[in-house]
Amino acid sequence: MMADFELLKTLIQPAETKIVLLVMDGLGGLPRPEDDKTELEAAHTPNMDRLAREGCLGQHYPVDYGITSGSGPGHLALFGYDPLRYEIGRGVLEAVGIGFPVTEKDVCARGNFCTLDANGNITDRRAGRIPTEVCARLVERINQANIQLDGVEVFVQPVQDYRFVVVMRGEGLSGEIEETDPQRTGVPPLPARPRAPEAARTAALFNQWIQQATATIRDQHPANGLTLRGFAKEPGLPKFKDVYGLRAGAIAIYPMYRGVASLVGMDRVEHQAKTVREEFEVAKHVWSEYDFLFIHVKYTDSRGEDGNFEAKKAVIEEVDAALPVLLDLKPDVLIITGDHSTPSQLRSHSWHPVPLLLWAPATARRDGSDHFGERACARGGLGTFPARQIMPLALAHALRLQKFGA
Amino acid sequence: MMADFELLKTLIQPAETKIVLLVMDGLGGLPRPEDDKTELEAAHTPNMDRLAREGCLGQHYPVDYGITSGSGPGHLALFGYDPLRYEIGRGVLEAVGIGFPVTEKDVCARGNFCTLDANGNITDRRAGRIPTEVCARLVERINQANIQLDGVEVFVQPVQDYRFVVVMRGEGLSGEIEETDPQRTGVPPLPARPRAPEAARTAALFNQWIQQATATIRDQHPANGLTLRGFAKEPGLPKFKDVYGLRAGAIAIYPMYRGVASLVGMDRVEHQAKTVREEFEVAKHVWSEYDFLFIHVKYTDSRGEDGNFEAKKAVIEEVDAALPVLLDLKPDVLIITGDHSTPSQLRSHSWHPVPLLLWAPATARRDGSDHFGERACARGGLGTFPARQIMPLALAHALRLQKFGA
Repeated sequence: MMADFELLKTLIQPAETKIVLLVMDGLGGLPRPEDDKTELEAAHTPNMDRLAREGCLGQHYPVDYGITSGSGPGHLALFGYDPLRYEIGRGVLEAVGIGFPVTEKDVCARGNFCTLDANGNITDRRAGRIPTEVCARLVERINQANIQLDGVEVFVQPVQDYRFVVVMRGEGLSGEIEETDPQRTGVPPLPARPRAPEAARTAALFNQWIQQATATIRDQHPANGLTLRGFAKEPGLPKFKDVYGLRAGAIAIYPMYRGVASLVGMDRVEHQAKTVREEFEVAKHVWSEYDFLFIHVKYTDSRGEDGNFEAKKAVIEEVDAALPVLLDLKPDVLIITGDHSTPSQLRSHSWHPVPLLLWAPATARRDGSDHFGERACARGGLGTFPARQIMPLALAHALRLQKFGA
Repeated sequence: MMADFELLKTLIQPAETKIVLLVMDGLGGLPRPEDDKTELEAAHTPNMDRLAREGCLGQHYPVDYGITSGSGPGHLALFGYDPLRYEIGRGVLEAVGIGFPVTEKDVCARGNFCTLDANGNITDRRAGRIPTEVCARLVERINQANIQLDGVEVFVQPVQDYRFVVVMRGEGLSGEIEETDPQRTGVPPLPARPRAPEAARTAALFNQWIQQATATIRDQHPANGLTLRGFAKEPGLPKFKDVYGLRAGAIAIYPMYRGVASLVGMDRVEHQAKTVREEFEVAKHVWSEYDFLFIHVKYTDSRGEDGNFEAKKAVIEEVDAALPVLLDLKPDVLIITGDHSTPSQLRSHSWHPVPLLLWAPATARRDGSDHFGERACARGGLGTFPARQIMPLALAHALRLQKFGA
C-alpha cells in the first residue's frame, strides 16, 4: 500500500522552507547513434551537473512501467496524485487547455462543428476542417444568441479548426453523459444520453442547448451542425493546501499547465514571460508568496515531437543557462524532471522512465553522480520509482513531514 | 500488488537452513563534507566489505518514499509486515519497551502522574517531573492496594520520571478508548471514554481502576493524580511460525526490540550480553534452537541521534570486528541492514533509504560491489525496494519457498 494523502495529512508540519518543482516537459530521451547520448546527456549543462554532484538522482515513471503518459496524468502524478485513481476528463482538459477558469460546478465538453445534409444526417464529421477563424465566428454567433437554460450558465469558446469547448455551470450537474458524435456519417448526431440516473437533468439541459445552438448555425454550411464529446465534471481533486499544507503557485507559458495546476489548488501566476529566463524572473517576483512553485517549460516536449534532437538539446541548455536566476532565490528543495519522456527519435511521448534531479543542500544524500543524464539517473541514489512519490520526497527534504510511528 | 502472507503461506516449504537478520538501528547516514563519506562508508569494515563482494546489495525504505519511520513501524517492515496496515499502538510499545510480556488478551496504556488541586483540577500535567524513584514508589503503593476488578487482572509498572504503564488483561477487552489527559491544566482528568460500543466495558473497568488508584495516591502531592494515554490492544499480528514456518528468536540488548519481536511470535532470547560481540556469542549459544535469528544493535541509532559521526562509525566498526563470531556459525542467509536511517548530521531518524547487504553463499547473485555503503547499495543488484520485501527474499535464499504456479 502506498502512503496516501490520509497518511501525509497526519504527518504534515509547518515549515518556512521553499520547494521548486521545475518540469521540462517530455524531458526523457533516447541516445542518438553518433555519440550514444540523449538530448539531456549531449546538452552542455554545467549548472545542472553541479546540482547533480551536490544532490541526488533517480528516475520515475509517471503512470506505470511501459505506460506512455499524456500531459494530464503525467502532471497529476508529479503533483502526487495517482493518475489511475484521479482523472481529469477530456472536456475539462480541453477547457483548461485554452485557459478557461474551470470551477467545481462545471461540466465541460469538447465540441466539433460538422456538416449536416437536408435530412439532418452527418456528411462530414469535421465540417471540412474549417479554419480557426471560422470556428471563432460560429462560436460568436452562438454566444450572441444568448441561449437561456433553467438554472445553469453556459460558456462556449473556440479552440482550433473545427473544435470548440462548451462549459455548463450550475448546481448538481454530472459529466456521466455519452458523446453525441456517432463516429460515422450518414446518420444524425446522437442525443446526449445519461450514463447514470443522476446525469438525466444535465443531459436534458445539454440537449436543449444543442438544439438551440444548432438552430443558430443551420445556414452556415459546411459548419451547420455540431457534436459534443468528452463530457466531464471538474474532478474535485484534493487541494495542495489541504493535503500538503502548501501555498502553491504555477508558472507556465502554456495555459493548459496552469490549468491542470489550478485543479489541484495552485494559484495561476499571471505573467507575460515568453522565455525560460523570464519564467524564472516571475518566480523571483512572487517568491515570498508561495511555499511551492511549479515551473513548466514546454519546448523540450515540442522539439521532441518535432523530431529535432538539436533543438530539444538547445532548450535544455537554455534552461541550464537561466538556472542561476532560480538558484539565487535559494530554494530549500529543487526538483528538476519531466512529466514523461519525448525522445526526438520517436517524435512522440514515450513510456521510458524520466530522469530526476533532487537538490536539497541541507538533506540530500549525495550519490556520486557527476552530471544530469538518463544513465546517471538510472544509477542514482533515489532508484526507480513512481512519479507520485516525488511530492512526499520533496516534503521530507523540506522538513515538512513528521516521523511516522514511535 | 505485493506478495502477501496468504501467498507466502502457500509456498512455504521446510528446510534446514538458517537465516540471520542483523539490524544496526538507524544505519543509514549522510555524507560528511570533509571526505564526502557517510558513517558506514567511512567505517573500516573489512568483513562486511568481503560479504558485499560475495553477496548482493540494495536499499530499502521502511514505510514509503519520504516517510521517516519510527522504530515500531521500521521493525514491523523488516519482519515483513506492511507498517501502514499493521500497527503497534503506543501503549503496547511502551509496555514492550520496559520488557513487559504483553499477551493477546492485553490492553496497554501509558500513564502520567500529575498534580491535582483541592477541586481535582490538574495544575501540572507531569507532577513536577518527579524522578523515576518516586514514580516507582507510587506504582508500588498502587500495586499494594491490590485493586480488584471484575474478570480482569491489572499490571502497573514504572517507566521513567512521571511515566508508568498500565496493562489490563482479560477476555473481550478493547483498546478503542480516548485518552484521559485533557492536554491542559485547570480542568480535571477526563474519564476513559469508549470510541466504539465494544470498548464500553473496558472503559468502565479503566474508570474503576483510575478511581481506586487515584485514591491510593491522593496524599502524595505533587503526584496525587494520574492520566492515561495511548490505550492499545495487543495487535494480534500474524506469527512467524504461521506465516513463514520459522522458529524465530530475538537477541537485543534493549527490551523494546525483544518486545516488538515477541509480538510477531519470536522468542525473547534471555541473555546478559552488553556488547555486540556478546550478542553474537548468545546467537552461538542458541544456534541449534532457531531457524531465524533477529539480532539488534542499538547504538548506531543512539550515536546518530547524538550527532556523533565518529561514534556511530565506531559502533559500525565494532559490529564488523565481531562478525567472525557470527560467520563461524555458517548461516545460510545473512542480512545486514537498519530499520531506518539516522544520519548524525540530522541528529534524528530520517526518510533516506536504508543500505542492505544480503549474503547467501549458495544463492546470492554477486553484483560487483566491493564494499558496504550507501552509494554501493543504491547501485546494488537488489535495487530500491520496500523493507517488507526483505523477508520473502530471505526465505527464497534459504530455499524455503516453492515455485509459484506451474
